Amino acid sequence: MVTVAIVGATGAVGAELLSVLEKRNFPVDRLVPLASARSEGTTVTFRGQPVTVRALSAEAFAGVDVAFFSAGAGRSREFAAIAQAAGAFVVDNSSAFRMDDNVPLVVPEVNPEALHPASGKPTLVANPNCVAAILTVALAPIERLSPIRRLVVSTYQSASGAGARAMEDLQVQTRDFLEGRPVIPRVLKHPFAFNLFSHDSAMEANGYNGEENKVVNELRKILGRPDLAVSVTSVRVPVLRAHSASVNVELAEPISVEAVRAALSAAAGVRVVDDPEKNHYPMPVEASGADDVLVGRIRRDPSHPNALNLFISGDQLLKGAALNAVQIAEALLANC
Amino acid sequence: MVTVAIVGATGAVGAELLSVLEKRNFPVDRLVPLASARSEGTTVTFRGQPVTVRALSAEAFAGVDVAFFSAGAGRSREFAAIAQAAGAFVVDNSSAFRMDDNVPLVVPEVNPEALHPASGKPTLVANPNCVAAILTVALAPIERLSPIRRLVVSTYQSASGAGARAMEDLQVQTRDFLEGRPVIPRVLKHPFAFNLFSHDSAMEANGYNGEENKVVNELRKILGRPDLAVSVTSVRVPVLRAHSASVNVELAEPISVEAVRAALSAAAGVRVVDDPEKNHYPMPVEASGADDVLVGRIRRDPSHPNALNLFISGDQLLKGAALNAVQIAEALLANC
Repeated sequence: MVTVAIVGATGAVGAELLSVLEKRNFPVDRLVPLASARSEGTTVTFRGQPVTVRALSAEAFAGVDVAFFSAGAGRSREFAAIAQAAGAFVVDNSSAFRMDDNVPLVVPEVNPEALHPASGKPTLVANPNCVAAILTVALAPIERLSPIRRLVVSTYQSASGAGARAMEDLQVQTRDFLEGRPVIPRVLKHPFAFNLFSHDSAMEANGYNGEENKVVNELRKILGRPDLAVSVTSVRVPVLRAHSASVNVELAEPISVEAVRAALSAAAGVRVVDDPEKNHYPMPVEASGADDVLVGRIRRDPSHPNALNLFISGDQLLKGAALNAVQIAEALLANC
Repeated sequence: MVTVAIVGATGAVGAELLSVLEKRNFPVDRLVPLASARSEGTTVTFRGQPVTVRALSAEAFAGVDVAFFSAGAGRSREFAAIAQAAGAFVVDNSSAFRMDDNVPLVVPEVNPEALHPASGKPTLVANPNCVAAILTVALAPIERLSPIRRLVVSTYQSASGAGARAMEDLQVQTRDFLEGRPVIPRVLKHPFAFNLFSHDSAMEANGYNGEENKVVNELRKILGRPDLAVSVTSVRVPVLRAHSASVNVELAEPISVEAVRAALSAAAGVRVVDDPEKNHYPMPVEASGADDVLVGRIRRDPSHPNALNLFISGDQLLKGAALNAVQIAEALLANC
């Protein structure tokens, strides 16, 4: 009998968590959807049935076996330890514990061994930043061919990374633009209709924004390469729910495109989409709703003997959030 | 008395050429708008007056002093020499002659000296690819501080680069998407509404598409650096008319961000938009309609001691096409 709580059940990731749990036949015997007091008494749908949303509280975790947190770092800091104390395994989708040395940060295709630390089975596992999760799925098979020396990454990030309200606002703004009305940003700060802008996270002292620094730090932790040289530029583009990235990968040795393509084709969680004749490469509309991370435009970089270029698209709400979280929970349960 | 012909007067760039000539008080005494036979007899508006469009023919260049070509490489190959023979200076916006050693490829802020070759005054000057023009305006001031060793560029290119029909199709598709109708690409091959895709130019043997190879070759020629190491990934994004690029620049020496910012602030054709407090950086909506190329996110790259990152937005139809062409013509006339 497994009782599953979802903290943030009414958000964009919460909705995907419900859908992924259902689709993957996760053994949910009882579902406890939790959200802010504002949503108390509303319902979410699970396996065709309405389930009443409860207000997040310490008491709500009684009897919970697995708790997914996706309600921001503040909520996680406040309630994760309470859920653990109540006996739950916590999979935390926020940034609260990702860089904590005692908390595994896991992409199951990449570093499953992190779920088995010498200290014993973890009761709290962090789910990575969406870009970090998507990138590592594509980069780990390459890292296994030859150590990565340097990454230069430019992202094309969708509205979904800023939540369901940002997805809605992109559509509202776009409709306003097309109908000749003024475009007024209501969720993110800048106009979004037919526009793009530097990622909306706050700038930090090193001249990079919070998102860029998260991606650098989390890539290093997940790949187990604490000194990996990484440069990231995070850009929000008017796309609804899949993130893309243009990635320049410098390796320790010159590895052929064919070897990289073969490694990616054989990798779990990756679908190679790389058809020059049809000019068919990873696109957000095809990554949306897909479990796999799409990888293509695999080619030598003429500007460096050991470098190659890739283009990657992955569903921000699935591999970038809900799917990866459920995969972590599956591994934890299998490991019981 | 200056007679100006515009070949491709009814296209997206043609319309901008008319607007730029008017705005800059280019000394047009007589305007000869030329287009395909299909558009013959329609009118374009110049200085508030309708001017009848004529069919492109050899005879149409009689008495023409300056001819702007923006109707594709085929038309330029067929008619540029005829216009030159008729006594016109030709500014060609197509790719037909850009890599011809005998034809200057000019961005007036970057390589004005190319307009004064030892062989005498040119009667044919090539206007660069839009991305190459926009990038070189931002890169030349940096190249003057320290030679560029390597560029890794990822672009965010607008619909306008594929013409007025692509701009219209992006809007039609987006409206269809928002109203729940099927999204059917009519101009470019892939869905464009809330989507992005690898640039629509054909793939070439080196694994790069035509656009990427143009940018590499033209950057080298304009910057006078035939062996410059450059890696480009060209991506079409659902934006209407300004191109953006995330650029990683490796220099021969470590140059401070402050020195780069100062050089860019003092450079002609550049506007530095780099405000971390307001998270305000170059955006297509602000680059659209602007003569200047916007440059921001100027920061050290932690992954390489001599590298820095930039984000650039420039109007594809202005600095990327019509404005640069008119600036070339101004320099040629001043030089008469």
